Amino acid sequence: MAIKNAFYAQSGGVTAVINASAAGVLETARAHSDKIGKVFAGRNGIIGALTEDLIDTSAESAEAIRALRHTPSGAFGSCRYKLKSLEQNRREYERLIEVFKAHDIGYFFYNGGGDSADTCLKVSQLSDTLGYPIQAIHVPKTVDNDLPITDCCPGFGSVAKYIAVSTREASFDVASMAKTSTKVFVLEVMGRHAGWIAAAGGLASSKDCEIPIVILFPEITFEKEKFLAKIDSYVKQFGYCSVVVSEGVKGSDDKFLSDQGLRDAFGHAQLGGVAPVVANIIKDGLGLKYHWGVADYLQRAARHIASKTDVEQAYAMGKAAVEYAIAGHNSVMPTIERVSNTPYSWKVGMAELSKVANVEKMMPADFITEDGFGITEKCRQYLSPLIEGEDYPPYKNGLPDYVRLQNTGVSKKLGEFKL
Amino acid sequence: MAIKNAFYAQSGGVTAVINASAAGVLETARAHSDKIGKVFAGRNGIIGALTEDLIDTSAESAEAIRALRHTPSGAFGSCRYKLKSLEQNRREYERLIEVFKAHDIGYFFYNGGGDSADTCLKVSQLSDTLGYPIQAIHVPKTVDNDLPITDCCPGFGSVAKYIAVSTREASFDVASMAKTSTKVFVLEVMGRHAGWIAAAGGLASSKDCEIPIVILFPEITFEKEKFLAKIDSYVKQFGYCSVVVSEGVKGSDDKFLSDQGLRDAFGHAQLGGVAPVVANIIKDGLGLKYHWGVADYLQRAARHIASKTDVEQAYAMGKAAVEYAIAGHNSVMPTIERVSNTPYSWKVGMAELSKVANVEKMMPADFITEDGFGITEKCRQYLSPLIEGEDYPPYKNGLPDYVRLQNTGVSKKLGEFKL
Repeated sequence: MAIKNAFYAQSGGVTAVINASAAGVLETARAHSDKIGKVFAGRNGIIGALTEDLIDTSAESAEAIRALRHTPSGAFGSCRYKLKSLEQNRREYERLIEVFKAHDIGYFFYNGGGDSADTCLKVSQLSDTLGYPIQAIHVPKTVDNDLPITDCCPGFGSVAKYIAVSTREASFDVASMAKTSTKVFVLEVMGRHAGWIAAAGGLASSKDCEIPIVILFPEITFEKEKFLAKIDSYVKQFGYCSVVVSEGVKGSDDKFLSDQGLRDAFGHAQLGGVAPVVANIIKDGLGLKYHWGVADYLQRAARHIASKTDVEQAYAMGKAAVEYAIAGHNSVMPTIERVSNTPYSWKVGMAELSKVANVEKMMPADFITEDGFGITEKCRQYLSPLIEGEDYPPYKNGLPDYVRLQNTGVSKKLGEFKL
Repeated sequence: MAIKNAFYAQSGGVTAVINASAAGVLETARAHSDKIGKVFAGRNGIIGALTEDLIDTSAESAEAIRALRHTPSGAFGSCRYKLKSLEQNRREYERLIEVFKAHDIGYFFYNGGGDSADTCLKVSQLSDTLGYPIQAIHVPKTVDNDLPITDCCPGFGSVAKYIAVSTREASFDVASMAKTSTKVFVLEVMGRHAGWIAAAGGLASSKDCEIPIVILFPEITFEKEKFLAKIDSYVKQFGYCSVVVSEGVKGSDDKFLSDQGLRDAFGHAQLGGVAPVVANIIKDGLGLKYHWGVADYLQRAARHIASKTDVEQAYAMGKAAVEYAIAGHNSVMPTIERVSNTPYSWKVGMAELSKVANVEKMMPADFITEDGFGITEKCRQYLSPLIEGEDYPPYKNGLPDYVRLQNTGVSKKLGEFKL
């Protein structure tokens, strides 16, 4: 087998552990220098490939690559850019081939979620469609946990841990304050289509640490009266409660609850989150004092409290992608296969990319309690292992010592390309 | 010296380390059982004293008390309840004495901020004003960092660390996304009167990890055009930027920026935070994509990323309070005295309570850069040591193993008291 260079890119929303997958790809490729030459990373994802804006990762020290494992976000830059179909935009695929040829690239590693899996699938078909021999392997990543086949998605476990920890902590806080002040704490979390992240808030309550938590899932239509009755009963029983609300919750009019048509004093439309809306509903309906928070990027960037399980799986996916490529595979994605729950064990599997692309894994209905406000024991058994273990980054002067790569550009060999 | 019992209560907004002070009080009192009998905690702060709702802390195991050191929030419940002056509400003071007498209480430890210092001062004067011999010692606590004399306040260092870490992490995130998506991340933090917490966001950027951060302090009147020019220049230079905005920022009309008179589609007033307001200003003024988060309780409950320095100081304040009481002091507060910056060292001092109560320590003007958007080197030297060190709690099943005390009530000896 002739030595070929590889291309690696990060795609879509970044996570606390996508760089751990990058470390897995890069360290494994370096360990197989008899098979893989240089790994070129796309600056800002696939845009880097299209514009021939490549980063020479061989310029980075082993120490820097190792530090990616504990650094959140996308070290090479990410992008939201989905390739259209070959029929719709043949020009982009021909450009990719031009760039791959110019830099002797025979391996394509794409680190992303559902949309990216589709792009990766299209690249994997370039041998057939346009006659350019390339092996394309998808490296799974998404905080939304919605890729099919794989038991879970790297990036999700760390968000889940962050939300579970934060919900427990804020609940302890509101419990202390409830006598004379705040009785309800509302936390808004990500998840526009699926309630995986909101579900993780339910882990904050456990048998040895019971906490009244009301979860608002995007899968469940919001019913105001039912919601207020639930809050009221919890506050009467416990003195306080916490609400974890998914940004994607909709009302019976099928509109996002966050989309309240808010106007400022001048009548200008204002964008708000769903947390203040829910807080206002509680104030208006029950007259209870509340506080609300919006985790936003904090939740998916929180490498400081990443799940050890998640970090290990993210790394393993990057490593397996390279190993699969070396073994001759194309158009596949490494997966996480759950072997057992207690003790939790898992192994690396493999999925056909054609079965991954454009398929969204939703929360099973039996993961949500009958009243629609909580998680079932089955859901708990699924989620719990994913937040297990801590994997603290090193600190310097009180702050996490995250790495920034040099990101040395590769000399361009081709003309410009307009996106 | 006859053995007397002690009263301990937590007051006002809780913190990640107020229970560490409680551990300091309780462990030190236990170590001096020849001087101090039982420590009774007020259930829900001073309300527990007024209503004779006392908790017998002697029922808690040494292990449970030890675990307070790593548990956030107020283990005995807190309250927002300020005693009026003796002239205005003599009845409450007489009731306190009645309760103290009934339970042989000779020591009063009050763990709180500025308002609580005032209450503690009044209690310390009960020997003079109402002839009841009591020693009252204030244990400093406030995330607002606004108590005078002491170099810093327990609770602040951990919020500062949380905000610095979160700002760095979210900034890494937005930097990755900036090419095709979000260019500005806005984080709302606590601090209605003083910008101490917002200032901590500035620590996210350091010499070896430069990050463009715009801080909006409550001390500085918000000027839209100047703010937009700053954001614009940062985004042009770095491709992205982060904004850390204090909830207390005001415009030139002296109104809170968060108070935008928002109305929903039906004309109902809606309460929002300042983060979405700032985000909308950026969108309208510069057309940039943004994300925003509101840390709220998460910041002050985040024991999982508490500052080791803060934990140690919080414990030391509780310990010193008991030692001062045993040494015969009354109407004082232990303080933190900074001995040197590099390496950071500090020692325990003592302040007269009369000099603490009703005095607010503001940010020095020379801690804010001339343009009003950043922290000076002097500010950095003050803040940096306060976030130094990590002090992770133990974990169980992926979650921090925080303690909940039994909080066994003490039999009442008196009649009811209406608040």
